[in-house]
Amino acid sequence: MSKFAFSLLATDPKSMARAGLWETPHGTIETPAFMPVGTAGTVKGLTPDQLAATGAKKILANTYHLALRPGPEVVADLGGLHRFFDWSGPILTDSGGFQIFSLAKLSRMTEEGVTFRSHLDGSALNLTPEKAMSIQEFLGADVIMCLDECPPADAPEEHILRAVDRTTRWAARCREAHQRSDQALFGIVQGGTIESLRIRSAEALLPFDFPGYAVGGLSVGEPPPEMYRTLEFTTPVLPVQKPRYLMGVGRPIDLIEGVLRGIDLFDCVMPTRNGRNGMAFTSTGPVRLKNARHLRDTSPLDAECPCQACQRFSRGYLRHLFMCGEMLGPILLTLHNLTFYQRLMKGLREAILEGRGIEFRASQLARWGESG
Amino acid sequence: MSKFAFSLLATDPKSMARAGLWETPHGTIETPAFMPVGTAGTVKGLTPDQLAATGAKKILANTYHLALRPGPEVVADLGGLHRFFDWSGPILTDSGGFQIFSLAKLSRMTEEGVTFRSHLDGSALNLTPEKAMSIQEFLGADVIMCLDECPPADAPEEHILRAVDRTTRWAARCREAHQRSDQALFGIVQGGTIESLRIRSAEALLPFDFPGYAVGGLSVGEPPPEMYRTLEFTTPVLPVQKPRYLMGVGRPIDLIEGVLRGIDLFDCVMPTRNGRNGMAFTSTGPVRLKNARHLRDTSPLDAECPCQACQRFSRGYLRHLFMCGEMLGPILLTLHNLTFYQRLMKGLREAILEGRGIEFRASQLARWGESG
Repeated sequence: MSKFAFSLLATDPKSMARAGLWETPHGTIETPAFMPVGTAGTVKGLTPDQLAATGAKKILANTYHLALRPGPEVVADLGGLHRFFDWSGPILTDSGGFQIFSLAKLSRMTEEGVTFRSHLDGSALNLTPEKAMSIQEFLGADVIMCLDECPPADAPEEHILRAVDRTTRWAARCREAHQRSDQALFGIVQGGTIESLRIRSAEALLPFDFPGYAVGGLSVGEPPPEMYRTLEFTTPVLPVQKPRYLMGVGRPIDLIEGVLRGIDLFDCVMPTRNGRNGMAFTSTGPVRLKNARHLRDTSPLDAECPCQACQRFSRGYLRHLFMCGEMLGPILLTLHNLTFYQRLMKGLREAILEGRGIEFRASQLARWGESG
Repeated sequence: MSKFAFSLLATDPKSMARAGLWETPHGTIETPAFMPVGTAGTVKGLTPDQLAATGAKKILANTYHLALRPGPEVVADLGGLHRFFDWSGPILTDSGGFQIFSLAKLSRMTEEGVTFRSHLDGSALNLTPEKAMSIQEFLGADVIMCLDECPPADAPEEHILRAVDRTTRWAARCREAHQRSDQALFGIVQGGTIESLRIRSAEALLPFDFPGYAVGGLSVGEPPPEMYRTLEFTTPVLPVQKPRYLMGVGRPIDLIEGVLRGIDLFDCVMPTRNGRNGMAFTSTGPVRLKNARHLRDTSPLDAECPCQACQRFSRGYLRHLFMCGEMLGPILLTLHNLTFYQRLMKGLREAILEGRGIEFRASQLARWGESG
């Protein structure tokens, strides 16, 4: 697994934060890192060049969506994911499990796998650990994920326990089924917000010696302090010398709090989805561009931001685009929000390298205000 | 008017085609030229850099749309159109008349002007020649248009005659009202497809010595041969040493036929609108990307095209984007179609400079096939 060597450059003396370098077959990633979400093989509205200009190095694509359309064999026929959407950097695919539990209509779950109905046309489909591996091998991402069971935040403890143990057994089957040596297969720790179950899950996965571990089943409805607390007792059980990935998280503050608790990798639709809806993250807090006060505003969206949206256009013009439903509004705000997230991670990384992770959090919160 | 000097470099010996250079306050345009349409101050889906990469130098924006949203004074407050959407090249605005006749609900037309209802909220508005000038001065384009009356293709002759004479009187009022010396005001020739009326319209406008003349009221439903025939008897009446602009036209073949009949400038939503709908113009004819035969097609959309869509992606990927309703599909096809149009105009210009305009038409038609 030397293709995926992970080396720690620094750990923050006053927190659990780490700064590292992670090699992949498609380039080295500086951690902590945020991965934009390219659901169906495209980060909505951006060309690969625009995406790279935000500072993004590694991106995520959704197995569930690509398995439905155009299908894993079609992606393989078209050269695999990197060629498919012309991204030369590393790519991660999830297992498809989370979307089956959240987006599709789950029909039946057995030890063998899950049966579900497509959210597109209602057709009946099934996914097993072996099939999750096969699909992700067809897609060809650098990093792939085990199929896991992801119960809702308010599930009863016995349900969460069952999900933990099934996730372990499915991880064993994924490990067994996975063939491609140019892909790193990550295990996923489940266990809700219950300390004993998170530890049980993590310890059960350690013997598989995965090249990286994800924390799943968070940011699914629990209050943020619960998520932070869960990370505090989960990451210490994970290997120090392997990357840790907090799936589907989150707001800018969640990224900081996650990093301070030992997380190295994140993905989330928030910067892209919010951007498409006219909500911008800025160095002085969130901005809703549709607000009438921006009508004649000649100032940039964020005076500190180097992105095209901020360097070339006024808030008044950006608002106009959203009021008219023009595509360029979502495009420019996606560009901006992803640039904001990448700059945040860069600032955080520099702070860790200088041993001032806690101070970095304080300084950001002071600037963002209550709503950050 | 030396700000808008127009010089002819060549005329095609076997047609009426001309190749020229046209100076504007925002750069020199090589003619014949095609202007992409940026209706509401944005060519849908493209950043200014992407738009420039297609080869476009001059673009068009719609006075009607910008007058409704965000309003001419707001555009002026935000620095005028060039600053508003950060386009450093020349911009042309139409008068708003065509949209009032086609898109809005026309309430009443008198000698004074037109009263209409906004297509957005039904509010009652009016436009006069003087107001059309005032709005376009607020917007600040390099080239602006007189308010004209544009009757439908099947209007009775007496209606077209009335429109010709009213267009002439309104042109006089526009000329009188227009103040900004950094804008070129074009007159618009009307007259349907009736030779005597086109000549009447053109001859009536000549005394105003406009810095350029547009041919309006074509491509409104008449068969293409009728449009070509109309150009054949209209352009000879127009001054040789001034640019001629065929408004709202058209298909690739219409551009060639128009140039061969002495037209220098075009605008049309076809490349952008068709691109958004998955229809591409290519060097071997139109391609419908949603067609199932492109599912596993690894070949580029157009092997001869230098645009990003053709250089970096497969037909299979482009089809996937359209099947999923992903924004990047319309973006890439808009990029491609505009690149196709610009390359067509460039090829046409080179052919005129070499005296082989007729041969250029034949070679293109042979490649495009029936559907070109």
